[in-house]
Amino acid sequence: MEQGLIHIYCGDGKGKTSAAIGLAVRAAGSGLKVLFTRFLKNESSGELAILDDISQIKVLHLEKSYGFFKNLSEEKKQEVRETYLQLWRAIELEILTGRYNVLVIDEFMAAYKYDLIPKEEAIEFLEKKPKELEIVLTGRNPDEKLVELADYVSEIKKVKHPFDQGIYARKGIEY
Amino acid sequence: MEQGLIHIYCGDGKGKTSAAIGLAVRAAGSGLKVLFTRFLKNESSGELAILDDISQIKVLHLEKSYGFFKNLSEEKKQEVRETYLQLWRAIELEILTGRYNVLVIDEFMAAYKYDLIPKEEAIEFLEKKPKELEIVLTGRNPDEKLVELADYVSEIKKVKHPFDQGIYARKGIEY
Repeated sequence: MEQGLIHIYCGDGKGKTSAAIGLAVRAAGSGLKVLFTRFLKNESSGELAILDDISQIKVLHLEKSYGFFKNLSEEKKQEVRETYLQLWRAIELEILTGRYNVLVIDEFMAAYKYDLIPKEEAIEFLEKKPKELEIVLTGRNPDEKLVELADYVSEIKKVKHPFDQGIYARKGIEY
Repeated sequence: MEQGLIHIYCGDGKGKTSAAIGLAVRAAGSGLKVLFTRFLKNESSGELAILDDISQIKVLHLEKSYGFFKNLSEEKKQEVRETYLQLWRAIELEILTGRYNVLVIDEFMAAYKYDLIPKEEAIEFLEKKPKELEIVLTGRNPDEKLVELADYVSEIKKVKHPFDQGIYARKGIEY
Protein backbone atom coordinates (compact mmCIF):
# COMPACT_ATOMS: atom_id res chain seq x y z
CA MET A 1 0.00 0.00 0.00
CA GLU A 2 1.22 3.47 -0.78
CA GLN A 3 -0.31 5.36 2.10
CA GLY A 4 -1.38 3.55 5.23
CA LEU A 5 -4.27 5.17 7.06
CA ILE A 6 -5.38 5.34 10.69
CA HIS A 7 -8.78 3.84 11.58
CA ILE A 8 -10.80 4.28 14.74
CA TYR A 9 -13.74 2.08 15.70
CA CYS A 10 -15.52 3.75 18.61
CA GLY A 11 -19.03 4.07 20.06
CA ASP A 12 -21.19 2.25 22.59
CA GLY A 13 -22.45 -0.49 20.24
CA LYS A 14 -21.26 -4.05 19.77
CA GLY A 15 -18.75 -4.65 16.99
CA LYS A 16 -15.61 -2.58 17.61
CA THR A 17 -13.32 -5.49 18.39
CA SER A 18 -15.11 -7.75 15.89
CA ALA A 19 -14.52 -5.18 13.16
CA ALA A 20 -10.82 -5.04 14.04
CA ILE A 21 -10.58 -8.85 13.95
CA GLY A 22 -12.41 -8.89 10.62
CA LEU A 23 -10.08 -6.30 9.15
CA ALA A 24 -7.05 -8.32 10.29
CA VAL A 25 -8.46 -11.42 8.58
CA ARG A 26 -9.25 -9.55 5.37
CA ALA A 27 -5.78 -8.01 5.26
CA ALA A 28 -4.12 -11.36 5.91
CA GLY A 29 -6.28 -12.93 3.21
CA SER A 30 -4.91 -10.38 0.77
CA GLY A 31 -1.32 -11.18 1.62
CA LEU A 32 -0.68 -8.36 4.10
CA LYS A 33 1.19 -8.94 7.37
CA VAL A 34 -0.72 -8.03 10.51
CA LEU A 35 0.32 -7.37 14.11
CA PHE A 36 -2.77 -7.79 16.29
CA THR A 37 -2.42 -6.42 19.83
CA ARG A 38 -4.80 -5.86 22.70
CA PHE A 39 -4.96 -3.87 25.92
CA LEU A 40 -7.22 -4.31 28.94
CA LYS A 41 -9.51 -7.08 27.86
CA ASN A 42 -10.62 -9.66 30.34
CA GLU A 43 -11.58 -12.59 28.26
CA SER A 44 -10.57 -16.04 27.25
CA SER A 45 -8.82 -15.82 23.98
CA GLY A 46 -10.41 -18.27 21.53
CA GLU A 47 -10.39 -15.63 18.82
CA LEU A 48 -6.74 -14.79 19.54
CA ALA A 49 -5.72 -18.43 19.13
CA ILE A 50 -7.41 -18.52 15.73
CA LEU A 51 -5.78 -15.26 14.64
CA ASP A 52 -2.40 -16.52 15.80
CA ASP A 53 -2.87 -19.67 13.70
CA ILE A 54 -3.13 -17.56 10.55
CA SER A 55 0.41 -17.36 9.19
CA GLN A 56 0.11 -13.70 8.16
CA ILE A 57 -1.01 -12.56 11.63
CA LYS A 58 1.04 -12.22 14.79
CA VAL A 59 -0.79 -11.73 18.08
CA LEU A 60 0.83 -9.84 20.95
CA HIS A 61 -1.08 -9.55 24.23
CA LEU A 62 -0.86 -10.23 27.94
CA GLU A 63 -2.03 -13.61 29.18
CA LYS A 64 -2.96 -12.18 32.55
CA SER A 65 -6.07 -10.10 33.09
CA TYR A 66 -6.68 -7.68 35.92
CA GLY A 67 -10.40 -6.91 36.08
CA PHE A 68 -11.79 -3.43 35.57
CA PHE A 69 -8.89 -1.00 35.73
CA LYS A 70 -10.80 1.77 37.47
CA ASN A 71 -11.73 -0.58 40.33
CA LEU A 72 -8.10 -1.48 41.13
CA SER A 73 -6.11 -0.15 44.09
CA GLU A 74 -3.52 2.54 43.34
CA GLU A 75 -0.74 0.03 43.94
CA LYS A 76 -2.30 -2.49 41.59
CA LYS A 77 -2.86 0.22 38.99
CA GLN A 78 0.83 1.00 39.05
CA GLU A 79 1.71 -2.66 38.54
CA VAL A 80 -0.71 -2.89 35.62
CA ARG A 81 0.73 0.27 34.09
CA GLU A 82 4.24 -1.13 34.24
CA THR A 83 3.14 -4.39 32.66
CA TYR A 84 1.31 -2.68 29.83
CA LEU A 85 4.19 -0.32 29.24
CA GLN A 86 6.22 -3.41 28.36
CA LEU A 87 3.53 -4.46 25.91
CA TRP A 88 3.66 -0.99 24.33
CA ARG A 89 7.45 -1.20 24.02
CA ALA A 90 7.13 -4.63 22.43
CA ILE A 91 4.66 -3.23 19.89
CA GLU A 92 7.02 -0.36 19.05
CA LEU A 93 9.87 -2.82 18.53
CA GLU A 94 7.82 -5.10 16.29
CA ILE A 95 6.79 -2.14 14.15
CA LEU A 96 10.41 -0.97 13.90
CA THR A 97 11.25 -4.23 12.12
CA GLY A 98 9.22 -2.98 9.16
CA ARG A 99 7.69 -6.43 8.86
CA TYR A 100 4.04 -5.41 9.15
CA ASN A 101 1.52 -3.76 6.87
CA VAL A 102 -1.26 -3.52 9.44
CA LEU A 103 -1.19 -2.86 13.19
CA VAL A 104 -4.31 -3.40 15.27
CA ILE A 105 -4.41 -2.07 18.84
CA ASP A 106 -7.65 -3.30 20.37
CA GLU A 107 -8.85 -1.22 23.35
CA PHE A 108 -6.37 1.51 22.54
CA MET A 109 -8.74 4.21 23.85
CA ALA A 110 -8.85 2.72 27.35
CA ALA A 111 -5.09 2.20 27.33
CA TYR A 112 -4.64 5.85 26.37
CA LYS A 113 -7.17 7.15 28.86
CA TYR A 114 -5.63 5.26 31.80
CA ASP A 115 -2.04 6.11 30.83
CA LEU A 116 -1.17 2.48 30.15
CA ILE A 117 0.49 3.91 27.07
CA PRO A 118 2.39 7.17 27.60
CA LYS A 119 0.09 9.69 25.92
CA GLU A 120 2.74 11.85 24.27
CA GLU A 121 4.61 8.85 22.96
CA ALA A 122 1.41 7.39 21.57
CA ILE A 123 0.60 10.60 19.70
CA GLU A 124 4.14 10.82 18.37
CA PHE A 125 3.97 7.17 17.31
CA LEU A 126 0.81 7.87 15.31
CA GLU A 127 2.14 11.12 13.84
CA LYS A 128 5.42 9.55 12.77
CA LYS A 129 4.15 6.11 11.85
CA PRO A 130 5.78 4.35 8.90
CA LYS A 131 4.09 5.81 5.83
CA GLU A 132 2.76 2.51 4.52
CA LEU A 133 1.53 1.15 7.85
CA GLU A 134 -2.25 0.85 8.32
CA ILE A 135 -3.27 1.29 11.97
CA VAL A 136 -6.57 0.22 13.52
CA LEU A 137 -7.53 1.47 16.99
CA THR A 138 -10.65 0.57 18.96
CA GLY A 139 -12.41 1.71 22.11
CA ARG A 140 -15.04 4.03 23.48
CA ASN A 141 -14.76 7.80 23.63
CA PRO A 142 -11.62 8.52 21.63
CA ASP A 143 -9.72 11.63 22.64
CA GLU A 144 -10.25 14.54 20.22
CA LYS A 145 -6.56 14.55 19.34
CA LEU A 146 -6.87 10.93 18.19
CA VAL A 147 -9.95 11.62 16.08
CA GLU A 148 -8.01 14.45 14.41
CA LEU A 149 -5.14 12.11 13.57
CA ALA A 150 -7.41 9.40 12.17
CA ASP A 151 -8.42 9.13 8.53
CA TYR A 152 -11.28 6.73 9.21
CA VAL A 153 -13.63 7.05 12.14
CA SER A 154 -16.55 4.64 12.42
CA GLU A 155 -18.84 5.09 15.39
CA ILE A 156 -20.77 1.96 16.29
CA LYS A 157 -24.00 3.04 17.91
CA LYS A 158 -26.13 0.79 20.04
CA VAL A 159 -29.63 0.80 18.57
CA LYS A 160 -30.77 -2.38 20.29
CA HIS A 161 -28.78 -4.50 22.73
CA PRO A 162 -29.84 -7.70 24.50
CA PHE A 163 -28.10 -6.61 27.73
CA ASP A 164 -30.98 -4.17 28.01
CA GLN A 165 -33.32 -7.19 28.14
CA GLY A 166 -31.21 -8.83 30.84
CA ILE A 167 -29.31 -11.19 28.55
CA TYR A 168 -25.70 -11.32 29.64
CA ALA A 169 -22.46 -11.83 27.73
CA ARG A 170 -22.13 -15.27 26.17
CA LYS A 171 -18.86 -16.99 25.31
CA GLY A 172 -18.17 -17.08 21.60
CA ILE A 173 -20.48 -14.18 20.84
CA GLU A 174 -19.90 -11.27 23.17
CA TYR A 175 -16.44 -12.41 24.25
CA MET B 1 -26.02 -21.56 23.74
CA GLU B 2 -29.49 -21.58 25.17
CA GLN B 3 -31.06 -18.80 23.17
CA GLY B 4 -29.52 -17.71 19.91
CA LEU B 5 -30.08 -14.07 19.04
CA ILE B 6 -30.39 -12.09 15.83
CA HIS B 7 -27.82 -9.35 15.15
CA ILE B 8 -27.91 -6.58 12.59
CA TYR B 9 -24.90 -4.49 11.59
CA CYS B 10 -26.16 -1.56 9.55
CA GLY B 11 -25.24 2.07 8.85
CA ASP B 12 -23.15 4.01 6.35
CA GLY B 13 -19.80 3.53 8.09
CA LYS B 14 -17.00 1.07 7.43
CA GLY B 15 -17.02 -2.12 9.49
CA LYS B 16 -20.27 -4.02 8.91
CA THR B 17 -18.72 -6.92 7.03
CA SER B 18 -15.55 -6.77 9.13
CA ALA B 19 -17.64 -7.08 12.29
CA ALA B 20 -19.42 -10.12 10.87
CA ILE B 21 -16.09 -11.73 9.95
CA GLY B 22 -14.76 -10.95 13.41
CA LEU B 23 -17.78 -12.48 15.08
CA ALA B 24 -17.39 -15.63 12.97
CA VAL B 25 -13.75 -15.93 14.05
CA ARG B 26 -14.57 -15.34 17.72
CA ALA B 27 -17.35 -17.95 17.64
CA ALA B 28 -15.12 -20.48 15.88
CA GLY B 29 -12.39 -19.79 18.41
CA SER B 30 -14.81 -20.73 21.16
CA GLY B 31 -15.71 -24.04 19.53
CA LEU B 32 -18.93 -22.94 17.80
CA LYS B 33 -19.72 -23.99 14.22
CA VAL B 34 -20.29 -21.15 11.77
CA LEU B 35 -21.91 -20.92 8.34
CA PHE B 36 -20.64 -17.74 6.67
CA THR B 37 -22.61 -16.66 3.60
CA ARG B 38 -22.62 -13.59 1.42
CA PHE B 39 -24.87 -11.91 -1.12
CA LEU B 40 -24.06 -9.27 -3.73
CA LYS B 41 -20.47 -8.49 -3.03
CA ASN B 42 -18.09 -7.77 -5.85
CA GLU B 43 -14.71 -8.49 -4.47
CA SER B 44 -11.87 -10.89 -4.54
CA SER B 45 -12.23 -13.25 -1.69
CA GLY B 46 -8.99 -13.36 0.30
CA GLU B 47 -10.90 -13.11 3.55
CA LEU B 48 -13.28 -15.89 2.47
CA ALA B 49 -10.38 -18.23 1.74
CA ILE B 50 -9.02 -17.62 5.24
CA LEU B 51 -12.42 -18.17 6.84
CA ASP B 52 -12.87 -21.36 4.84
CA ASP B 53 -9.51 -22.63 6.11
CA ILE B 54 -10.77 -22.43 9.70
CA SER B 55 -12.18 -25.86 10.45
CA GLN B 56 -15.15 -24.53 12.42
CA ILE B 57 -16.30 -22.24 9.59
CA LYS B 58 -17.99 -23.16 6.33
CA VAL B 59 -18.22 -20.48 3.64
CA LEU B 60 -21.06 -20.54 1.11
CA HIS B 61 -21.07 -17.87 -1.61
CA LEU B 62 -21.18 -17.37 -5.36
CA GLU B 63 -17.89 -17.20 -7.19
CA LYS B 64 -19.36 -15.00 -9.89
CA SER B 65 -20.05 -11.32 -9.31
CA TYR B 66 -22.44 -9.19 -11.31
CA GLY B 67 -21.66 -5.54 -10.64
CA PHE B 68 -24.13 -3.14 -9.04
CA PHE B 69 -27.52 -4.83 -9.06
CA LYS B 70 -29.51 -1.69 -9.69
CA ASN B 71 -27.52 -0.96 -12.86
CA LEU B 72 -28.31 -4.33 -14.47
CA SER B 73 -30.81 -4.90 -17.29
CA GLU B 74 -34.15 -6.45 -16.31
CA GLU B 75 -33.14 -9.70 -17.99
CA LYS B 76 -29.85 -9.81 -16.11
CA LYS B 77 -31.61 -8.98 -12.86
CA GLN B 78 -33.84 -12.00 -13.35
CA GLU B 79 -30.82 -14.23 -13.94
CA VAL B 80 -29.13 -12.90 -10.83
CA ARG B 81 -32.32 -13.45 -8.79
CA GLU B 82 -32.51 -17.06 -9.87
CA THR B 83 -28.88 -17.66 -9.03
CA TYR B 84 -29.17 -16.11 -5.58
CA LEU B 85 -32.38 -18.00 -4.90
CA GLN B 86 -30.30 -21.15 -5.20
CA LEU B 87 -27.84 -19.74 -2.68
CA TRP B 88 -30.73 -19.01 -0.30
CA ARG B 89 -32.04 -22.56 -0.70
CA ALA B 90 -28.57 -23.92 -0.01
CA ILE B 91 -28.38 -21.84 3.18
CA GLU B 92 -31.77 -23.15 4.32
CA LEU B 93 -30.65 -26.73 3.70
CA GLU B 94 -27.41 -26.27 5.60
CA ILE B 95 -29.27 -24.82 8.58
CA LEU B 96 -31.75 -27.72 8.52
CA THR B 97 -28.86 -30.08 9.23
CA GLY B 98 -28.66 -28.58 12.71
CA ARG B 99 -24.88 -28.53 12.37
CA TYR B 100 -24.36 -24.82 12.95
CA ASN B 101 -24.42 -22.53 15.97
CA VAL B 102 -23.94 -19.30 14.05
CA LEU B 103 -25.19 -18.18 10.63
CA VAL B 104 -23.77 -15.04 9.03
CA ILE B 105 -25.52 -13.57 5.99
CA ASP B 106 -23.36 -10.71 4.77
CA GLU B 107 -25.23 -8.13 2.66
CA PHE B 108 -28.57 -9.57 3.71
CA MET B 109 -30.23 -6.15 3.56
CA ALA B 110 -29.45 -5.69 -0.14
CA ALA B 111 -30.52 -9.27 -0.89
CA TYR B 112 -33.81 -8.58 0.88
CA LYS B 113 -34.35 -5.20 -0.72
CA TYR B 114 -33.80 -6.51 -4.27
CA ASP B 115 -35.85 -9.69 -3.72
CA LEU B 116 -32.84 -11.96 -4.16
CA ILE B 117 -34.29 -13.70 -1.13
CA PRO B 118 -38.09 -14.11 -1.12
CA LYS B 119 -39.12 -11.55 1.52
CA GLU B 120 -41.85 -13.57 3.19
CA GLU B 121 -39.70 -16.66 3.37
CA ALA B 122 -36.86 -14.67 4.84
CA ILE B 123 -39.07 -13.27 7.58
CA GLU B 124 -40.50 -16.70 8.32
CA PHE B 125 -36.98 -18.13 8.43
CA LEU B 126 -35.98 -15.55 11.02
CA GLU B 127 -39.18 -15.94 13.05
CA LYS B 128 -38.95 -19.73 13.12
CA LYS B 129 -35.19 -20.06 13.32
CA PRO B 130 -33.79 -22.91 15.41
CA LYS B 131 -33.88 -21.64 18.98
CA GLU B 132 -30.16 -21.97 19.61
CA LEU B 133 -29.00 -20.52 16.30
CA GLU B 134 -27.26 -17.13 16.39
CA ILE B 135 -27.85 -15.13 13.20
CA VAL B 136 -25.80 -12.14 12.00
CA LEU B 137 -27.11 -9.96 9.17
CA THR B 138 -25.36 -6.98 7.59
CA GLY B 139 -26.19 -4.20 5.18
CA ARG B 140 -27.43 -0.63 4.92
CA ASN B 141 -30.94 0.51 5.71
CA PRO B 142 -32.55 -2.55 7.27
CA ASP B 143 -36.29 -2.86 6.77
CA GLU B 144 -38.28 -1.96 9.90
CA LYS B 145 -39.63 -5.49 10.12
CA LEU B 146 -36.06 -6.82 10.35
CA VAL B 147 -35.08 -4.35 13.05
CA GLU B 148 -38.11 -5.48 15.05
CA LEU B 149 -37.06 -9.13 14.76
CA ALA B 150 -33.46 -8.43 15.78
CA ASP B 151 -32.17 -8.53 19.36
CA TYR B 152 -28.98 -6.67 18.57
CA VAL B 153 -28.79 -3.71 16.24
CA SER B 154 -25.48 -1.88 15.85
CA GLU B 155 -25.45 1.10 13.52
CA ILE B 156 -22.01 1.92 12.18
CA LYS B 157 -21.92 5.63 11.47
CA LYS B 158 -19.40 7.26 9.24
CA VAL B 159 -17.71 10.02 11.22
CA LYS B 160 -14.68 10.33 8.96
CA HIS B 161 -14.01 8.40 5.77
CA PRO B 162 -10.99 8.64 3.45
CA PHE B 163 -13.23 8.31 0.37
CA ASP B 164 -14.27 11.85 1.21
CA GLN B 165 -10.63 12.87 0.72
CA GLY B 166 -10.49 11.10 -2.63
CA ILE B 167 -8.76 7.95 -1.38
CA TYR B 168 -10.30 4.93 -3.08
CA ALA B 169 -10.86 1.36 -1.93
CA ARG B 170 -7.66 -0.57 -1.36
CA LYS B 171 -7.30 -4.35 -1.55
CA GLY B 172 -6.87 -5.95 1.85
CA ILE B 173 -8.40 -3.01 3.71
CA GLU B 174 -11.65 -1.90 2.13
CA TYR B 175 -12.23 -5.13 0.21
